[in-house]
Amino acid sequence: MTGDRPIDFWFDFASGYAYFAALEIEDLGRRVGRPVRWRPYTLGTAFKATGARGLSSTPLKRDYARTDWHRIARLRGVPFALPDHHPSVALAATRVFYLIDTQDPEAAKRFARALFDAYFTRGIDSGNLEHVLAVAAVLGLDTDALAADAVAPDIKQKVKLISEQAVALGVFGSPFFLVDGEPFWGWDRMAMMEKWIGRGGW
Amino acid sequence: MTGDRPIDFWFDFASGYAYFAALEIEDLGRRVGRPVRWRPYTLGTAFKATGARGLSSTPLKRDYARTDWHRIARLRGVPFALPDHHPSVALAATRVFYLIDTQDPEAAKRFARALFDAYFTRGIDSGNLEHVLAVAAVLGLDTDALAADAVAPDIKQKVKLISEQAVALGVFGSPFFLVDGEPFWGWDRMAMMEKWIGRGGW
Repeated sequence: MTGDRPIDFWFDFASGYAYFAALEIEDLGRRVGRPVRWRPYTLGTAFKATGARGLSSTPLKRDYARTDWHRIARLRGVPFALPDHHPSVALAATRVFYLIDTQDPEAAKRFARALFDAYFTRGIDSGNLEHVLAVAAVLGLDTDALAADAVAPDIKQKVKLISEQAVALGVFGSPFFLVDGEPFWGWDRMAMMEKWIGRGGW
Repeated sequence: MTGDRPIDFWFDFASGYAYFAALEIEDLGRRVGRPVRWRPYTLGTAFKATGARGLSSTPLKRDYARTDWHRIARLRGVPFALPDHHPSVALAATRVFYLIDTQDPEAAKRFARALFDAYFTRGIDSGNLEHVLAVAAVLGLDTDALAADAVAPDIKQKVKLISEQAVALGVFGSPFFLVDGEPFWGWDRMAMMEKWIGRGGW
């Protein structure tokens, strides 16, 4: 009966580690027989709670993360190029994601993967609504409707509430996974999470 | 010719993740044919550079880390109990370590493992010199000499310089590994480091 319970995949669209997680999480979900719910949020909301700063604003960690992202990309054989404007505040991408998600969660996942790819391989700005809509357009989505809805108060409030909900659930990083109430923080904990689900915990 | 080049294992004696790393690093070194240099330092020195705070002083991360440490202990089948006084500022332990290390690095490793065990399973205070010397006494070390030397200016200065050296090398966490100039941060990256050494990088 656990097969229906999702893995919640919390992330920020400007997170390098989330880019790698996004490339792997659906395969992991299939292997363990769990659906994956993609839950982008604004990591800045968590930083207010933890007092932390983003990796790219933190001396030493910043340089380590850049080395590490390129190392992971080579290990996995996937492209990776950090945009000059990294880290974007990816509010526009997050709002458009939830507009699509309300209609069609699978389309929202396709959009999220395309957005990550566009940001981390071609350097689009996920904080720029026009750039974000261009990604949606390639997927055949109705960008006129998205353009109007993305600046409406409703979606702004929704993204704010979802980000506050993340923090209330104990989410403070990106990627961050919750499955059956169990938290796993970081791309490098996905293997442990898979083992946890497979064994039913330990 | 790479067999002589060590894995530098940087850690703070009050770090939960370092406790788990200390239980595994020598086996890893043997598997890849590399000696391990144990390099305790004061993580607070790195925090001054990064602006970060300790896990146990950070909302949300604090609770996550406690859940995670117990989860790792159950996974590995090792004891773990967080002392009430966690996190200790482990200066006394670090100073005594380097006093022993100067004479006998292998004895210093035995001391470090015994210290971790005493702190994370029996709740001794690694910031209290008497507690630290009691651990050294069980190993048959000359605690009278250590007691005198541990409060001398020389060792205080040495530990300060080593901690500053760590930060100069880009070390900012615990555990943190450097091997052939390549940095690996965290207990959960030891498997990646082992793969890296085995392949000669990628």
